[in-house]
Amino acid sequence: MRTRAERIADTRALLARPELDAWVASWSSSGDGHLVPLSIAWDDARLILATEPGAVTTRNLEHVPRARLGLGHTRDVVMIDAEVEESMAADDAPLSVIEVYAAQSGWDPRVAGVPFVVHLLVPVRIQAWREANEIEGRTLMRDGDWLER
Amino acid sequence: MRTRAERIADTRALLARPELDAWVASWSSSGDGHLVPLSIAWDDARLILATEPGAVTTRNLEHVPRARLGLGHTRDVVMIDAEVEESMAADDAPLSVIEVYAAQSGWDPRVAGVPFVVHLLVPVRIQAWREANEIEGRTLMRDGDWLER
Repeated sequence: MRTRAERIADTRALLARPELDAWVASWSSSGDGHLVPLSIAWDDARLILATEPGAVTTRNLEHVPRARLGLGHTRDVVMIDAEVEESMAADDAPLSVIEVYAAQSGWDPRVAGVPFVVHLLVPVRIQAWREANEIEGRTLMRDGDWLER
Repeated sequence: MRTRAERIADTRALLARPELDAWVASWSSSGDGHLVPLSIAWDDARLILATEPGAVTTRNLEHVPRARLGLGHTRDVVMIDAEVEESMAADDAPLSVIEVYAAQSGWDPRVAGVPFVVHLLVPVRIQAWREANEIEGRTLMRDGDWLER
């Protein structure tokens, strides 16, 4: 079983990985859930997502500005509960945000055929575990703060 | 790009795989979404899940009997929208259901330390795609019927 410090180090390394994908669960104000895999980026404080304008995830995040993301493998998982800080057209996003996203994902959402929407999400809770023996001690971030000790 | 027949064959093969896991999105009647990785089994018509009695997924499926499941990898994905046909204590589940689940997952939910809940889910829609070039033609099942042609 990994210590908390090991899990935080593994989680930070995962978040920095090129071509990082996440399973992104979002839900509508009428209570319909959605789930899709999406490329994501991490600027060391926020998750950056880019979605198509008409996509269910885009609509959900506009109305219910929260998401739950699953990263890694099903038996080596990082779960993130996050809140949407801001959503904006890719062309209106700060250049620094676009640069982080494009560098990590390998793709610039401003050159898509349709006007993609960029979302900045702040993680509130992060948990990481491999198998049942790591369920204990799985919480690495609570209320937006890494539990460094 | 795979044909529909190839995707159906790949999807059926995935569903039969030992130690199969899925990302299971569920949501509460008050509209809170949840997402966790879970072992699943497939009896050729229904998905079989087993969850702990107090788990968020257990509570959600009891109140909103639907789920969206992601299987495979983020760049070779099978997405399943499913409806809960029945949830029951593992000890009350038909032996055939337990046998299918235990054979595929390698674990019998009746021997857990806590009284697990077994859920039978009927897939309503199944989609499968690898990358953007396979978004077209991704629907393999609609309204519970495989689109064989």
